[in-house]
Amino acid sequence: MNYVLENIPERALKPREKGLTMVMDKGLSLREVEDVLETSGDYIDIVKLGWATSYVYPKLEEKIKIYKDAGISVYFGGTLFEAFVVRNQFDDYRRVLDKFGLELAEVSDGSLEMPHDIKCQYIRQLSEQVTVLSEVGSKDAEKIIPPYKWIQLMTDELSAGAWKVIGEARESGNVGLFRSSGEVRTGLVDEILTQIPYEKIIWEAPQKAQQVWFIKLMGSNVNLGNIAPNEVIPLETIRLGLRGDTFDHFLNNEWK
Amino acid sequence: MNYVLENIPERALKPREKGLTMVMDKGLSLREVEDVLETSGDYIDIVKLGWATSYVYPKLEEKIKIYKDAGISVYFGGTLFEAFVVRNQFDDYRRVLDKFGLELAEVSDGSLEMPHDIKCQYIRQLSEQVTVLSEVGSKDAEKIIPPYKWIQLMTDELSAGAWKVIGEARESGNVGLFRSSGEVRTGLVDEILTQIPYEKIIWEAPQKAQQVWFIKLMGSNVNLGNIAPNEVIPLETIRLGLRGDTFDHFLNNEWK
Amino acid sequence: MNYVLENIPERALKPREKGLTMVMDKGLSLREVEDVLETSGDYIDIVKLGWATSYVYPKLEEKIKIYKDAGISVYFGGTLFEAFVVRNQFDDYRRVLDKFGLELAEVSDGSLEMPHDIKCQYIRQLSEQVTVLSEVGSKDAEKIIPPYKWIQLMTDELSAGAWKVIGEARESGNVGLFRSSGEVRTGLVDEILTQIPYEKIIWEAPQKAQQVWFIKLMGSNVNLGNIAPNEVIPLETIRLGLRGDTFDHFLNNEWK
Repeated sequence: MNYVLENIPERALKPREKGLTMVMDKGLSLREVEDVLETSGDYIDIVKLGWATSYVYPKLEEKIKIYKDAGISVYFGGTLFEAFVVRNQFDDYRRVLDKFGLELAEVSDGSLEMPHDIKCQYIRQLSEQVTVLSEVGSKDAEKIIPPYKWIQLMTDELSAGAWKVIGEARESGNVGLFRSSGEVRTGLVDEILTQIPYEKIIWEAPQKAQQVWFIKLMGSNVNLGNIAPNEVIPLETIRLGLRGDTFDHFLNNEWK
Repeated sequence: MNYVLENIPERALKPREKGLTMVMDKGLSLREVEDVLETSGDYIDIVKLGWATSYVYPKLEEKIKIYKDAGISVYFGGTLFEAFVVRNQFDDYRRVLDKFGLELAEVSDGSLEMPHDIKCQYIRQLSEQVTVLSEVGSKDAEKIIPPYKWIQLMTDELSAGAWKVIGEARESGNVGLFRSSGEVRTGLVDEILTQIPYEKIIWEAPQKAQQVWFIKLMGSNVNLGNIAPNEVIPLETIRLGLRGDTFDHFLNNEWK
Repeated sequence: MNYVLENIPERALKPREKGLTMVMDKGLSLREVEDVLETSGDYIDIVKLGWATSYVYPKLEEKIKIYKDAGISVYFGGTLFEAFVVRNQFDDYRRVLDKFGLELAEVSDGSLEMPHDIKCQYIRQLSEQVTVLSEVGSKDAEKIIPPYKWIQLMTDELSAGAWKVIGEARESGNVGLFRSSGEVRTGLVDEILTQIPYEKIIWEAPQKAQQVWFIKLMGSNVNLGNIAPNEVIPLETIRLGLRGDTFDHFLNNEWK
């Protein structure tokens, strides 16, 4: 840090098991990736190449290499897994992961209907090849999953071999964990946390108010995902109680 | 593409007459332009230097050259045309187009009142010098043009020599084709399409939900404009049915 | 400028006492800073390193040097001042300012409760060391300050030695001067202007509609702050009546 401030909350250091920041890359140029690493490399644990952007991105191998060389795990968004599966090309997907040397993959069912035992089977199969993130929650705003069901899905997917489960929010933060207004479904999150250890979940929280809400509930070292590349530095200050939103939270600020 | 996925909708290739993506550049640095070309050059057909940003932008000649060298057409936003015309400097405008070697220009009347026969005369005059895009729709949210009038204006402007007509939405996507909420005026678009071939129109659609709506209505190869530079890759995936929003649309995703 | 347009409002030139544009840098890379300077250096007077982002930013000295070499004043956001003060580390803060060679600093009380005479004392003390900007208005949307109180606070802070006072809006533009919708509290601004010269105030106005409102009220050379780096060029065109929003304002556009 550039100067000393007392009473700053303790942050887990890399490689972290909690306090993870997962960034959404939806098409950064190689130079932009270098810039993100220069400013925020220490604060980023995982990068998701959003949904199937990797299909059209022209310098995919180079990009993956830059991230890996910086010690950051890269994975393809779950929609790509679904795009292969829905076409009966799951074996092709496994070969693609190998071809690009990926060590992390997401299993999701946000855009299609899949019986849950089949989803868990995919998690089991893929976890023999790579570390698996599984995602719970639909991209469809109409499809409301009740809390007990979220808990059951998450529990089963962790049992099937998922390293961590992701709570769905999309890039925009208005489905799954959130109401269409972007507001957190607080009762849902509270109930999930009675059953699942908080460090086993990565909460997609693209909007600042959502990040603040999770940090106030679970502390500096909550795992947050779908963070825009230029919001990593701002997020880090929120985690440390150094932005207005959490200034009060980590400090007794009564005037003496 | 980086791997093979079956049943991907067919995209028109460059140089394209339909499926155009027009990007709004409102002041990118030269290096940022290079980055956009690296990641998205194949997916961009036209770049608009937004409204009169070219007046204050310091390295205009260099920027135009970079785009042209990449085979991308550049033009000044229609507001600049209007800024010259309202000052009785139309001849100066023609000289400016020549000075910067532009081969494309926009004729619009979004910020001023102009009798339509005069607008068509400008289209006629300019199309002797360059390829002309003409724009229909006001930047003023209060000014609602009824559908039959949109059709008549578009028809007349195409007859006057416009290569394609643009449906106005601004950078923000909340006027013209859209309600102030950003919602598409669907009845208006449906009615326009009964009379004007869809490939003759470039729909300004800066918001994702708008892009999705047009793609669902007219397919992968609809012409879309006012796309932010970092949204070109995401847009390309939406065109291909590879983002959640159009995942269902191009594919029968029932589970077998 | 790249071409000649008649009847363009006159802009104050750098170094300016009015018509200032203050940019919010919340973590730009060094290369991005260079890019901003290339495109917008002539239009930027002051850069704020937002709130306490300077705590976690890895190349702080280099960044400050690049801005200073370009003749642009840099300062730390007021939340950092508050973070030091609330920890009884004000003397450390003074040393940090010296260490990084800063000549500008902000005194604010947006995130804590501070008696106003103590705030004015800080302004007095710091203005012996650097030029001081003081900020009025809470980051707390619930805390509504009535107009007569804004005027009194501003007057006292200018008397205490502040070079200019800043009207609070946050990065998002939805507190202080603005309603939670982002709408300007027009009565408040009108009343402030009856007592405080407009050039003594920097209005935080991150949203375009807010910038337009202030420019229409006070002209091209109003001081505006919390401008995103890629919105400086667009703002400059609004100041000059060259974007749709102010096209009418600076020009009689009746058709002749």
